[in-house]
Amino acid sequence: MSESMNQQILLKSYPTGEPKESDFALVETAIPEPGEGEILSSTIYLSLDPYMRGRMSDRESYATPAKLGEVMMGSNVSQVVKSNNPKFSAGDFVLGYGGWQDYAIAQGETLRKLDPSQVPISYALGITGMPGMTAYFALLDIGKPKAGETMVVSAGSGAVGAVVGQIAKIKDCRAVGIVGSDEKCDYVVNELGFDACINRKTQDLNSALKAACPNGIDIYVDHTAGPILEAVLQNINLGARIPLVGLISQYNAETPPPGPNLMPLLVKRALIKGFLVGDYQQRHAEFMNDMSQWLQAGKLKYKEDIVKGLENAPRAFIGLLQGENFGKLIVQVSDDPTKK
Amino acid sequence: MSESMNQQILLKSYPTGEPKESDFALVETAIPEPGEGEILSSTIYLSLDPYMRGRMSDRESYATPAKLGEVMMGSNVSQVVKSNNPKFSAGDFVLGYGGWQDYAIAQGETLRKLDPSQVPISYALGITGMPGMTAYFALLDIGKPKAGETMVVSAGSGAVGAVVGQIAKIKDCRAVGIVGSDEKCDYVVNELGFDACINRKTQDLNSALKAACPNGIDIYVDHTAGPILEAVLQNINLGARIPLVGLISQYNAETPPPGPNLMPLLVKRALIKGFLVGDYQQRHAEFMNDMSQWLQAGKLKYKEDIVKGLENAPRAFIGLLQGENFGKLIVQVSDDPTKK
Repeated sequence: MSESMNQQILLKSYPTGEPKESDFALVETAIPEPGEGEILSSTIYLSLDPYMRGRMSDRESYATPAKLGEVMMGSNVSQVVKSNNPKFSAGDFVLGYGGWQDYAIAQGETLRKLDPSQVPISYALGITGMPGMTAYFALLDIGKPKAGETMVVSAGSGAVGAVVGQIAKIKDCRAVGIVGSDEKCDYVVNELGFDACINRKTQDLNSALKAACPNGIDIYVDHTAGPILEAVLQNINLGARIPLVGLISQYNAETPPPGPNLMPLLVKRALIKGFLVGDYQQRHAEFMNDMSQWLQAGKLKYKEDIVKGLENAPRAFIGLLQGENFGKLIVQVSDDPTKK
Repeated sequence: MSESMNQQILLKSYPTGEPKESDFALVETAIPEPGEGEILSSTIYLSLDPYMRGRMSDRESYATPAKLGEVMMGSNVSQVVKSNNPKFSAGDFVLGYGGWQDYAIAQGETLRKLDPSQVPISYALGITGMPGMTAYFALLDIGKPKAGETMVVSAGSGAVGAVVGQIAKIKDCRAVGIVGSDEKCDYVVNELGFDACINRKTQDLNSALKAACPNGIDIYVDHTAGPILEAVLQNINLGARIPLVGLISQYNAETPPPGPNLMPLLVKRALIKGFLVGDYQQRHAEFMNDMSQWLQAGKLKYKEDIVKGLENAPRAFIGLLQGENFGKLIVQVSDDPTKK
């Protein structure tokens, strides 16, 4: 990598099924100059999230599609190099949406300044960022947990799921995770304090759910749809609430697969409701207030899975869709000056 | 039929797929004697409703299964013949749950007295009874219609659907029905005042919905699940609400079929919620208050499809599941003394 160039990862082709490394291209361009009112910043951390798969397609998703030949989009934490905007100065740490590249230009209104003395700057991509907000509002606003209820979350050790389970515990619920390995099960139970965990790869979902949820399921925070949702529906209680946060199980599907039979919703007068964190931007302060209190009180633990090197982002992203990450997946693009 | 005997229709076998007449048996027994506190009444009208199919099975539904060899259950309007309960007198008209038979014994708390001077007594099986309450609360409590929104209802000329559409009009929504014949389309538009109607048997659902709902769909009151729900999901607006009232399309299925792909729920942050009218019994007065006002003001029209003769109940019920009825299907078991 040349110090004076900007490495970028472009989307070369819309993947068919699972993305391949050849769907991406690494290119070098000149470091851009910020125009009037603009800010140039240097990426430190880049976030990789399942929703990105939905954008790598012409199909309608909850966001506009990524364009072929352009830089892959994504949130990152970066440091301001040069600012033509009076609100930002060189050296500031910011959260932005610069995408998969070393350097990005932004308008001031798309950046949020980060205070490295509060929490580690990388947390803004996870527990105090979009995944944390997703966990917080999906669980509290749609799930509406009551003490003593049972809450199940799929992708339970992931960036959202780990926070969902811990907030459910703060709300005095029984928290049950569904994850993809025994190591992750061990983590969510012994490190994060979930009450039980199911390894979806080795256990029969229906019987494992019955064993882990002896009083049935009141809330299911769904990241996957597919067979996990079907099994959960067989075990829901009267009035169950199911925030639908993602459909990881079908992100790579060429044709949308059928969904679950909905009879259990009728029998149990339960609800499924789609959730998108963007709808909650105006409630960010409420979220940050609770989260910083809980973090300071040691009630929330957080694990990051840090992959080094921008060039490794495509491979890491492919692994994310296969559940290979363990904790919030981020790519470290350059040194973090807040860590000595 | 012997005047001194009680004709009954029993459930002989759980149907495989579509019920057949041979799944039922007509028998005659002695007219029972009411015990202490009990009431003997003579059936005038018997209600036939799709939910009954769900009970004719060992499978879990939203009600306990019917037992083989017992009288088919169901609501009826009847006249008290003999009462050992001080709250009821011979000659009273009552709504009860006596099932498919000429005479039934009931405890007082399971009967509700009807006032024939208010609305026709048969209405208690329809527009002012369970189907009317279903329409009222499913639309208002889950659908939450706002003026100017578009509301679609399947089985739009049926006992529930016809009321849903008319209440949607009262709430200043655009009302669109989905029905099974041109005659029913004509009825809901020209008699009931729906804005548009789709014949699901002759029209392509997706394009017909786009044409009938130029501003998209905000509320869908679903009686069917299956292909209609799938087509509706392709056309919902942001924040759409879908009360799930029935799954007629699968009541005869031996194995629960898959449901719709749920991506549109996520994209549109929409909700599907199961509805059961039994949950709203404590709000009966609120319902009756609005409904009688609307009926008296001529804002609600109501059509009954009356089949004569208890012995014809099985055939009529089979037709109901195939959409052959036109209006609320009831069986007239004996003369209605309130009609001269």
